[in-house]
Amino acid sequence: MGWDPGDVFRFVDVLGVVANGLLGGAVARSRRFDLFGFATLAIISALGGGMLRDVLLDAGQPVALTDPAYLSGALVAAALAYVLHLDGPVSRRLLVVADLLALGCWSATGTLKATGTGLGVVPSVLLGVITAVGGGMVRDVVVGQTPRVFGGNTLYATLAIGGSAVAFGAAGLGQPDLGMGASIGLCLLLGLAARRLGW
Amino acid sequence: MGWDPGDVFRFVDVLGVVANGLLGGAVARSRRFDLFGFATLAIISALGGGMLRDVLLDAGQPVALTDPAYLSGALVAAALAYVLHLDGPVSRRLLVVADLLALGCWSATGTLKATGTGLGVVPSVLLGVITAVGGGMVRDVVVGQTPRVFGGNTLYATLAIGGSAVAFGAAGLGQPDLGMGASIGLCLLLGLAARRLGW
Amino acid sequence: MGWDPGDVFRFVDVLGVVANGLLGGAVARSRRFDLFGFATLAIISALGGGMLRDVLLDAGQPVALTDPAYLSGALVAAALAYVLHLDGPVSRRLLVVADLLALGCWSATGTLKATGTGLGVVPSVLLGVITAVGGGMVRDVVVGQTPRVFGGNTLYATLAIGGSAVAFGAAGLGQPDLGMGASIGLCLLLGLAARRLGW
Repeated sequence: MGWDPGDVFRFVDVLGVVANGLLGGAVARSRRFDLFGFATLAIISALGGGMLRDVLLDAGQPVALTDPAYLSGALVAAALAYVLHLDGPVSRRLLVVADLLALGCWSATGTLKATGTGLGVVPSVLLGVITAVGGGMVRDVVVGQTPRVFGGNTLYATLAIGGSAVAFGAAGLGQPDLGMGASIGLCLLLGLAARRLGW
Repeated sequence: MGWDPGDVFRFVDVLGVVANGLLGGAVARSRRFDLFGFATLAIISALGGGMLRDVLLDAGQPVALTDPAYLSGALVAAALAYVLHLDGPVSRRLLVVADLLALGCWSATGTLKATGTGLGVVPSVLLGVITAVGGGMVRDVVVGQTPRVFGGNTLYATLAIGGSAVAFGAAGLGQPDLGMGASIGLCLLLGLAARRLGW
Repeated sequence: MGWDPGDVFRFVDVLGVVANGLLGGAVARSRRFDLFGFATLAIISALGGGMLRDVLLDAGQPVALTDPAYLSGALVAAALAYVLHLDGPVSRRLLVVADLLALGCWSATGTLKATGTGLGVVPSVLLGVITAVGGGMVRDVVVGQTPRVFGGNTLYATLAIGGSAVAFGAAGLGQPDLGMGASIGLCLLLGLAARRLGW
């Protein structure tokens, strides 16, 4: 009876892996890379932030390696991006929603994992932000592009900081699940509002 | 009596470090870097993939730091590349052979080390590929060039995936040495055939 | 009675974090990045080398995360660089001095930490150099610029190697504090002389 919030968060998490893998594949397509380039950019986009987080936290092997759903999700996304042209209005809109869901989910995951190892608010929020936007940053650097979060588009970085701060506060109140849900909701609602209103 | 395959693999491994150090030095020469640039690019080309692997596997300090042969080999290669012009037909051909030997050796090493920590086939093959082509990828990014393995030249990435898969299969049969030898042979033979036939 | 050299080194260390954070912020300004770009480049410039060192040494979580002074110093520097124009002759000169002090301090810190884990002279000097110039290298790569230490300006890399070698020698004589002081003095004096004499 009842539902486990962990199942929902897990779904959002893997959905975010697939969405970011598709976004990495779209970059590979725009550069006319071959299949290996698609796979590499999908893995970096979808799993790079979490790998950076786990290496910095020194918390054992990155979950991106130990949990089969992550690598599989990124590789399936790379293959999809290779064969399909996902630039219709519907698929674009779905990608935006999934990406914003992942932004909130990953900000909270990184922050909760960091504070769980005893880190304070500043490094915990930093690790939330690294988890959420680090993969996209590394992907941009690898293809020789200035990371988009540095200028022009501050929305994602701002949302990641907000989501991480909310998660940190909720963890302090002993409510990590609430923090995860609030971070996801915050990033989705503010992110959609910002796009609609042209912030 | 008899020979130890470990000695052969060790020779191939260190030969690969020197060869990739020379290749890194060649990039430094083409950019007119100074001696420090030669040393840095040689270290990244020759040891970057293994360092990435060891950091991701969380398996203690990278062997690139603890085994003196690796750093020495990379630095000797940097010095050689700085003083010699290794672009005659003979030295080019020897470099190609040594580079292909290293490709198979490093693919197998990374895969065997990963599966030895309990990882499954997908992450183990990924770590084989990272070991084999990761150093060259990071080197290309550091000098502001799109990694060659992303497009145009899929040969090395394809061979690394093949060698890693062979090594994983052999490890499952309890034959890691066989896997190492088969990966080296596969990459060398297919690599030379591909170059000869213009694949 | 007496003074603790550790207090002086700590002051130099945090001063170096602020100075390198300001230098990272100056790069962000020249690229017209937003505040998030300032913060990211300040963190990478000021703390990237130490993070790389700690991850490679596999010595627990990076001190950049566990010691609040580091992240705070980098973020304060980012905010200062965002609101102030620190390009007057006095602030330029102070930045050069603080940067050279940090160069010697970080070279010695990295070398001493590496040799403390049992590494030999070559990897220990390498880790000193990574600590001292690694953050600036990563920052240059992230903004799509060839790392300055690779060519044109060999001064900083040369000083870092010298400071690291001195620290390694002093550690072998059981005098780490002396090595730290000598490395700082060497980098400051030779660095200022080189600038004055146009080496």
